[in-house]
Amino acid sequence: METELSRQLGIEHAIFGFTPFPAVAAAISRAGGFGVLGAVRYTAPEDLRRDLDWMQEHTGGMPYGLDVVMPAKKVEGVSEADVEAMIPETHRTFVTDTLARHGVPELAEGEASGWRITGWMEQVARSQLDVAFDYPVGLLANALGPPPADVVARAHDHGVLVAALAGSAAHARRHAEAGIDVVVAQGYEAGGHTGEIASMVLTPEVVEAVDPLPVLAAGGIGSGRQIAAGLALGAQGVWLGSLWLTTTEATLGSRALTAKLLAAGSGDTVRSRALTGKPARQLRTAWTDAWDDPAGPGTLPMPLQGLLVAEAVSRIQRYEVEALLGTPVGQIVGRMNSERSVREVFDDLTRGFEEAVTRINRIAGRSTS
Amino acid sequence: METELSRQLGIEHAIFGFTPFPAVAAAISRAGGFGVLGAVRYTAPEDLRRDLDWMQEHTGGMPYGLDVVMPAKKVEGVSEADVEAMIPETHRTFVTDTLARHGVPELAEGEASGWRITGWMEQVARSQLDVAFDYPVGLLANALGPPPADVVARAHDHGVLVAALAGSAAHARRHAEAGIDVVVAQGYEAGGHTGEIASMVLTPEVVEAVDPLPVLAAGGIGSGRQIAAGLALGAQGVWLGSLWLTTTEATLGSRALTAKLLAAGSGDTVRSRALTGKPARQLRTAWTDAWDDPAGPGTLPMPLQGLLVAEAVSRIQRYEVEALLGTPVGQIVGRMNSERSVREVFDDLTRGFEEAVTRINRIAGRSTS
Repeated sequence: METELSRQLGIEHAIFGFTPFPAVAAAISRAGGFGVLGAVRYTAPEDLRRDLDWMQEHTGGMPYGLDVVMPAKKVEGVSEADVEAMIPETHRTFVTDTLARHGVPELAEGEASGWRITGWMEQVARSQLDVAFDYPVGLLANALGPPPADVVARAHDHGVLVAALAGSAAHARRHAEAGIDVVVAQGYEAGGHTGEIASMVLTPEVVEAVDPLPVLAAGGIGSGRQIAAGLALGAQGVWLGSLWLTTTEATLGSRALTAKLLAAGSGDTVRSRALTGKPARQLRTAWTDAWDDPAGPGTLPMPLQGLLVAEAVSRIQRYEVEALLGTPVGQIVGRMNSERSVREVFDDLTRGFEEAVTRINRIAGRSTS
Repeated sequence: METELSRQLGIEHAIFGFTPFPAVAAAISRAGGFGVLGAVRYTAPEDLRRDLDWMQEHTGGMPYGLDVVMPAKKVEGVSEADVEAMIPETHRTFVTDTLARHGVPELAEGEASGWRITGWMEQVARSQLDVAFDYPVGLLANALGPPPADVVARAHDHGVLVAALAGSAAHARRHAEAGIDVVVAQGYEAGGHTGEIASMVLTPEVVEAVDPLPVLAAGGIGSGRQIAAGLALGAQGVWLGSLWLTTTEATLGSRALTAKLLAAGSGDTVRSRALTGKPARQLRTAWTDAWDDPAGPGTLPMPLQGLLVAEAVSRIQRYEVEALLGTPVGQIVGRMNSERSVREVFDDLTRGFEEAVTRINRIAGRSTS
């Protein structure tokens, strides 16, 4: 599965796998794809350094990438405390009440509260980059629009390609103007932050909008048939995030959550602002229902919502409170029905792709060799 | 573009075109596809007979189909007046006020009020069928779940295949159990009634759910690349509705509406209950905004909403009130940017499909002949 972009990056298959788990990212790269490690949870640069050292040892010399979260617009002189102070008391009470109603215990003293707003702040992302450029990272992806111009320039100086996610052709055009190299067209059906346009429509729109820049199709891809579809739509590769969450290498840290993912159907996700304040697809739970309920206080804008719910999300995960337990995941969750190794999943993808190509050639009346 | 289903129906390309306009349906069939005439607006059987006579003369002997709207569940002894009586006065006032705010004139006496609930009632659909079976219709599609068992049996007696739209794998399984022959997997991005699951995820799910029944991919398809994607997902053909609305053969009856369609981007539709009471994708307008506004009275369930707004919709169309003027259409509207003949559009589709197949073979490292 070879495209101009896969050749440029030196990978066998144009399959990009986004994951927060180094073991998954390394296994994707070893299998012939391109593992992209999500860096949002590394608030301490030394933690990222430790995991990139590990990646170096476990990717067998195959290329991999890093995904950071860096807003293009700088917010000067705003501390986490300043942001905390902007959260209305009604919303804090709603969190407390919702957790109490479901009997969610408090964290023990000293237990980390997991996801923090700090991972989303520019100084943290910049300290991540200081580490990243010490490693042979092949691609730097940014989940929040294009990174700042100096970061793009710095990446290019290091020979690192820069990718950015886009939910519309207009976003993608802005990315292209900012000098990024690869656009990830993130469809409505994708896990995490998504727009309203489904992959079937979005991918070719973005391909045409930024031509000749390479585009990766993201959202709804979890089988070889879907990879063939994404490539048929004009993409130079596919970007898969959700599918790896139920691989044996993934360390979600909650058996109950893994069980929920394995049991969920494609209709069991919702695009909700509950997690970050922007619409992000995730498992639908009593927690997202509470936030999406018109009778409730509603969500706060980013980054307030993320800060507001950070500790609550940690508590829900720590105590595995079934009804509230969720995670960002795409509609492809309906296909995630067994725990398999990254290698098995990957081989299934490439085999399925070959079968899909054979089938479409039969439909087109072509014989292939 | 040949599949088992296209061979069975005797068509050259597995492209199914749904349209309310006989001239469009006939042109699709003449171009080598399968035109499917939407029958919902034929409340008088003689009108349908007139247009099917016309189809016979203008399809050049090529096969075509008919789409009816027939609920599987029968509602006995309920008249239109009974249904009218169930509409709350607050909702009638909201319609009157919204029209007044936008200065929409009344219809002149005797002017038809367009779409009526009667087209959705079983006795009308049955009278349509009495006409349809006098013609060599190749496929009978039903937009509201599977048709009643006796209708399926009657179609099969006439050698007519029966198709039904499905927005989820569960729907599709019910259709299969009801003995239908073809499932149209209607993705989130499609125009008209849709579910939440996008085509990229829905199509293969439905294909696997009803295997070996043939599935048509619907939603988001308006180019050869998208046809290739739909077929790569396992479909035996594609089902396109929106794309034909801006063909030169289409008789929308409003230049202003055609202009709106040509100008709209993929982000200019909304999945709203404003038209029928069930979520249907359509152009986003001040009319849909009013109904979707949490401050408004909200929509009524089907069929009340359709009955409530029928006259209003006619008035909006009759007087081409720009801000309110809309129509069911999918996200593919972003690609409908010029008025071309059905033949031009169709040739573009088949040429684009061939290019997409060539490209995917290059990616797969296959040479074809």
